Amino acid sequence: MPSSPTKNLEIFDNPAPARDYQIHMEIPEFTCLCPKTGQPDFATLILDYIADEKCIELKSLKLYIWSYRNEATFHEAVTNRIVDDLVAVLEPRYLRLTAKFYVRGGIFTNVVVEHRKSGWQPLPPVDLAKFGSQPPIRE
Amino acid sequence: MPSSPTKNLEIFDNPAPARDYQIHMEIPEFTCLCPKTGQPDFATLILDYIADEKCIELKSLKLYIWSYRNEATFHEAVTNRIVDDLVAVLEPRYLRLTAKFYVRGGIFTNVVVEHRKSGWQPLPPVDLAKFGSQPPIRE
Amino acid sequence: MPSSPTKNLEIFDNPAPARDYQIHMEIPEFTCLCPKTGQPDFATLILDYIADEKCIELKSLKLYIWSYRNEATFHEAVTNRIVDDLVAVLEPRYLRLTAKFYVRGGIFTNVVVEHRKSGWQPLPPVDLAKFGSQPPIRE
Amino acid sequence: MPSSPTKNLEIFDNPAPARDYQIHMEIPEFTCLCPKTGQPDFATLILDYIADEKCIELKSLKLYIWSYRNEATFHEAVTNRIVDDLVAVLEPRYLRLTAKFYVRGGIFTNVVVEHRKSGWQPLPPVDLAKFGSQPPIRE
Amino acid sequence: MPSSPTKNLEIFDNPAPARDYQIHMEIPEFTCLCPKTGQPDFATLILDYIADEKCIELKSLKLYIWSYRNEATFHEAVTNRIVDDLVAVLEPRYLRLTAKFYVRGGIFTNVVVEHRKSGWQPLPPVDLAKFGSQPPIRE
Amino acid sequence: MPSSPTKNLEIFDNPAPARDYQIHMEIPEFTCLCPKTGQPDFATLILDYIADEKCIELKSLKLYIWSYRNEATFHEAVTNRIVDDLVAVLEPRYLRLTAKFYVRGGIFTNVVVEHRKSGWQPLPPVDLAKFGSQPPIRE
Amino acid sequence: MPSSPTKNLEIFDNPAPARDYQIHMEIPEFTCLCPKTGQPDFATLILDYIADEKCIELKSLKLYIWSYRNEATFHEAVTNRIVDDLVAVLEPRYLRLTAKFYVRGGIFTNVVVEHRKSGWQPLPPVDLAKFGSQPPIRE
Amino acid sequence: MPSSPTKNLEIFDNPAPARDYQIHMEIPEFTCLCPKTGQPDFATLILDYIADEKCIELKSLKLYIWSYRNEATFHEAVTNRIVDDLVAVLEPRYLRLTAKFYVRGGIFTNVVVEHRKSGWQPLPPVDLAKFGSQPPIRE
Amino acid sequence: MPSSPTKNLEIFDNPAPARDYQIHMEIPEFTCLCPKTGQPDFATLILDYIADEKCIELKSLKLYIWSYRNEATFHEAVTNRIVDDLVAVLEPRYLRLTAKFYVRGGIFTNVVVEHRKSGWQPLPPVDLAKFGSQPPIRE
Amino acid sequence: MPSSPTKNLEIFDNPAPARDYQIHMEIPEFTCLCPKTGQPDFATLILDYIADEKCIELKSLKLYIWSYRNEATFHEAVTNRIVDDLVAVLEPRYLRLTAKFYVRGGIFTNVVVEHRKSGWQPLPPVDLAKFGSQPPIRE
Ligand SMILES: [Ca+2]
Ligand SMILES: [Ca+2]
Ligand SMILES: [Ca+2]
Ligand SMILES: [Ca+2]
Ligand SMILES: [Ca+2]
Ligand SMILES: [Ca+2]
Ligand SMILES: [Ca+2]
Ligand SMILES: [Ca+2]
Ligand SMILES: [Ca+2]
Ligand SMILES: [Ca+2]
Ligand SMILES: [Ca+2]
Ligand SMILES: [Ca+2]
Ligand SMILES: [Ca+2]
Ligand SMILES: [Ca+2]
Ligand SMILES: [Ca+2]
Ligand SMILES: [Ca+2]
Repeated sequence: MPSSPTKNLEIFDNPAPARDYQIHMEIPEFTCLCPKTGQPDFATLILDYIADEKCIELKSLKLYIWSYRNEATFHEAVTNRIVDDLVAVLEPRYLRLTAKFYVRGGIFTNVVVEHRKSGWQPLPPVDLAKFGSQPPIRE
Repeated sequence: MPSSPTKNLEIFDNPAPARDYQIHMEIPEFTCLCPKTGQPDFATLILDYIADEKCIELKSLKLYIWSYRNEATFHEAVTNRIVDDLVAVLEPRYLRLTAKFYVRGGIFTNVVVEHRKSGWQPLPPVDLAKFGSQPPIRE
Repeated sequence: MPSSPTKNLEIFDNPAPARDYQIHMEIPEFTCLCPKTGQPDFATLILDYIADEKCIELKSLKLYIWSYRNEATFHEAVTNRIVDDLVAVLEPRYLRLTAKFYVRGGIFTNVVVEHRKSGWQPLPPVDLAKFGSQPPIRE
Repeated sequence: MPSSPTKNLEIFDNPAPARDYQIHMEIPEFTCLCPKTGQPDFATLILDYIADEKCIELKSLKLYIWSYRNEATFHEAVTNRIVDDLVAVLEPRYLRLTAKFYVRGGIFTNVVVEHRKSGWQPLPPVDLAKFGSQPPIRE
Repeated sequence: MPSSPTKNLEIFDNPAPARDYQIHMEIPEFTCLCPKTGQPDFATLILDYIADEKCIELKSLKLYIWSYRNEATFHEAVTNRIVDDLVAVLEPRYLRLTAKFYVRGGIFTNVVVEHRKSGWQPLPPVDLAKFGSQPPIRE
Repeated sequence: MPSSPTKNLEIFDNPAPARDYQIHMEIPEFTCLCPKTGQPDFATLILDYIADEKCIELKSLKLYIWSYRNEATFHEAVTNRIVDDLVAVLEPRYLRLTAKFYVRGGIFTNVVVEHRKSGWQPLPPVDLAKFGSQPPIRE
Repeated sequence: MPSSPTKNLEIFDNPAPARDYQIHMEIPEFTCLCPKTGQPDFATLILDYIADEKCIELKSLKLYIWSYRNEATFHEAVTNRIVDDLVAVLEPRYLRLTAKFYVRGGIFTNVVVEHRKSGWQPLPPVDLAKFGSQPPIRE
Repeated sequence: MPSSPTKNLEIFDNPAPARDYQIHMEIPEFTCLCPKTGQPDFATLILDYIADEKCIELKSLKLYIWSYRNEATFHEAVTNRIVDDLVAVLEPRYLRLTAKFYVRGGIFTNVVVEHRKSGWQPLPPVDLAKFGSQPPIRE
Repeated sequence: MPSSPTKNLEIFDNPAPARDYQIHMEIPEFTCLCPKTGQPDFATLILDYIADEKCIELKSLKLYIWSYRNEATFHEAVTNRIVDDLVAVLEPRYLRLTAKFYVRGGIFTNVVVEHRKSGWQPLPPVDLAKFGSQPPIRE
Repeated sequence: MPSSPTKNLEIFDNPAPARDYQIHMEIPEFTCLCPKTGQPDFATLILDYIADEKCIELKSLKLYIWSYRNEATFHEAVTNRIVDDLVAVLEPRYLRLTAKFYVRGGIFTNVVVEHRKSGWQPLPPVDLAKFGSQPPIRE
């Protein structure tokens, strides 16, 4: 499995383009460098999107995340840049990226950026009761 | 109890068709195969629906879920397909399927697909305070 | 305290009929029988309602719940029936019953049924920040 | 600190009357008596309000809560009465009291009562992502 | 699946009698009657044992639990009796039953009873670090 | 149910005096007065004991707890006194009382007192794996 | 790193002013003094904002928080003052500060203050399913 | 990555054979078949071991777990068999397998099996305070 | 209540010197200064002790903790110093202080220091089953 | 703050060498490379030690952890190597490192390595009741 970090994001055809449906991905392994100190920064990324014609391929997403390992970039800037890159290749109906950065200076910072396709409207939400989801075992 | 996996979903008559009410089912035992590698995939499925004239029979739902055990299918595709199958037999007023797939490549993926019956409108929600629900014992 | 199960639900006068306010009750001790197998079924019930002129008396509610102990009834049907019985005696402005049944066949089923008084409209909700509520001790 | 229970609620001037802002107080030490049996009842109270010209003084609130220690009163009635008393002295733009009573007869009861000042309208809510708030230590 | 409640506990051969190993079962559906009031009581049972030559068959255990549905018995007595019954058929090296009863009179009661085979000694424990066990999905 | 607070603790015969087994009771409704300020104090009590010939009767325990409602006593003293009273009537093989007092002055205080019958020795513990105990529903 | 407390809040250019996006900061180390008693008070602050042209610099925010260490101020007043100070330098589209004060007199107080730029309207929210975010390790 | 299920467990040299140290693995994707009904069974496996000269290779462990997908085997038997297989190739100083099976018949079953190398003694444990381990982000 | 910080710790007579019993106190409001940077440090302190003839008075403990507000001291040193001070006035049979410091440099540090009176031996522990302790309300 | 990764671990004098006391550090930002694939690996490290004459300096520990960012090393090997490095500079009485690696191949791996100074014996543990440690705010 010799792969390497890359800014190339690969896609595949949305198997259900007739529907607005949600894809949610949690990516816990983001790391980059701090432009001020050169020291490593870390974050967990949460990606939510409603695809239009294309979906993001999971392995290429992993390699793309890897590509930030040696780049220096600020919290607010990098979250916006990843959204820009994903929007450029996916052209999604909707996309939201939540970056949860590791504590710095005793302060915890999260950044939430979203993109909406021009002219796209979300369906009015159907409010149902929500229930938890434990595993069916005794832990 | 000699039963076998099947794509046949059995139904029964909705006992209260005059009302819009919610049925919620958590199905933790979904497994299929990965089309790329042939290796097993796993997910927990959460089904929520508002029945019209028919309700899904629990045991047949279990056998239907079993029928994916030897099929190769992608995350986004299989979630949409199960919704299509359930909608075909239930013709529900509303249905939502949430598939929470086991981690692959360090990334966690959930897919949420919903169907709305043409012309159906949800009642405006009544917002009440929500409270937790622990067991009445000391664990 | 020699009491016995009964379908008679007792009421008392709503002490504040001028207001729409919420009464929430968690009833963890529901059990009935499965019509297919005759075996016991169990559930936790959650009752939320906005009273009109009458409130439900707690002890009679407990005896009413007890009255299902030897009755055979399906999940979707019994939840709707309890709502019908409560609505008949309370004539509430709003009532919602959530029944969380114990796992069967590896599948967890919850049913949520609500009733709205004809012509009643909920007040527009006031959205406040929500906070948790731990006990003021160290456990 | 020789103080005594009292129904007198003391107030102070709202330091920011130009804004609608939320004050949230959790009061875990409420106890009164049951009118039927004379036995003690207990509850945790949650108070949320949007002040107009006055704010509630914390110590007097504590003494007011204490004043119920030897009074007999029902769950639904006492929650409404405390709201009436608070509204009388605070004349708030909005006030909500949530009383979570200790289990009785195996049933858990919560009561939620709110008051809105005549003519007051809440600002349309701004929906932001919500995040948890753990302590910055390792417990 | 027409079965009926029974005090007959069925067993099967321990597949690994050469080893002391632990079998843990959580049985959440215990209900009996209160000898004083005739009203239903409820509990969750936790069974842990180290088999000797026999293991308990799961379905017969369920029917045995069912057999208490119409019996009147006190908390401390019934927990000891179930241990006696299990020990009589299993003759285990070690057995422990934990009964967690639903709240009564505002007090929560658990009872823990164990049996040790005469002459049996547990192996000295090997203390390892313990880690939690969340599901491999995002809930 | 006209009962009144009392220091009389009632007992019943231990149904299984041949065994050392554990009885655990959680009593969340303790309140007394502070000797310094006269203000109410609150605590949750946890009682664990191994009975000898007698067990504590649940309702009388509740009335005994009630009897502290108008007594002034310090945290460390009252916890020891309750142990003395329980030991006097139960003469247990072992007894432990844990009192978790509500926060005072920003500090949380718990007190743990135990009694061992002269000459009694606990059985050497059998170390088994421990598992959690969630309810079999989806909350 | 010789720095000192200061009321000077430093800013940097918003890297994505074309978008409304959320910045969330948790600041657990707030302490000031109580104007009545002179004793220390403590709080955790939660800051959420939608920047316009400027973002808050993290280290200066920390020094600003430090500057309250020797100031006497009430809960409601200080929360409003910090909002005023942040609004003065950030001129944000939206800002919300949540102050969670440590328990005093057995009562827990939180204050939530928000500011909206004149003429600014939030985008209509896109309601997606929400999922938890555990670490990808076994703890 | 075309791999296939196999009973061959691969090993590598223990990099620190001079020390007794613990390796802990959580394997959530175990599935086999029920010998009675032919229906799928599921479990989460927890493996803890102290290596002697060999360590288990992670990918081969995954393929080994996969090899049970079409085998019919009982809970107690399969847990003991996996231990036998691991012991045969690893010859560990100590090994413990915990299998947490999905609920069947409303009952949750876990099985814990351990192996100790003949003559091996664990070091006496050093009891330290234990602390939780949350992620350094705000979730 | 005009009090001031002080290093004087006040005591009172142990009301039950005949017993070894545990007093546990959680003190969340510790703050001092960092000797390197002069910036504030924060910690939660957990005190556990077995008194001999004297107990610590709660209010004086609070004032003592306050006395560190303007002192510069390292994590390991201050935890040991507080233990020395407490031991000097209490002369306890046993005392343990756990200091959980707020995150610094992305690393979380806790320090645990204990003192044992010369010649004192703890009683051999009685191992009972442990159970959680939720509040008796629905939160 | 221009610092750089380094294998040099700096120390300072143990301020209380007369006592055996525990220092606990959680280090969530460990990342290295996988020797097989060259891809990044991640872990949370937990360090516990009982110092002899020296303590580890926090900032140098952070730079040491950083030094693994571009090194390829296996899970079991790197955990043992970090222990060797820490032991070489600290010469502690006791040291334990717990490495919790991010999920790979659907399997979660933790490694626990300890070192004991030759001739050092831990004090016999004093078993006290343990209590949780929530923040004194309402979250
Ligand atoms: Ca869960
Ligand atoms: Ca819950
Ligand atoms: Ca629960
Ligand atoms: Ca809570
Ligand atoms: Ca709690
Ligand atoms: Ca929280
Ligand atoms: Ca928290
Ligand atoms: Ca914790
Ligand atoms: Ca767990
Ligand atoms: Ca879990
Ligand atoms: Ca969850
Ligand atoms: Ca639990
Ligand atoms: Ca989490
Ligand atoms: Ca955690
Ligand atoms: Ca609890
Ligand atoms: Ca906590």
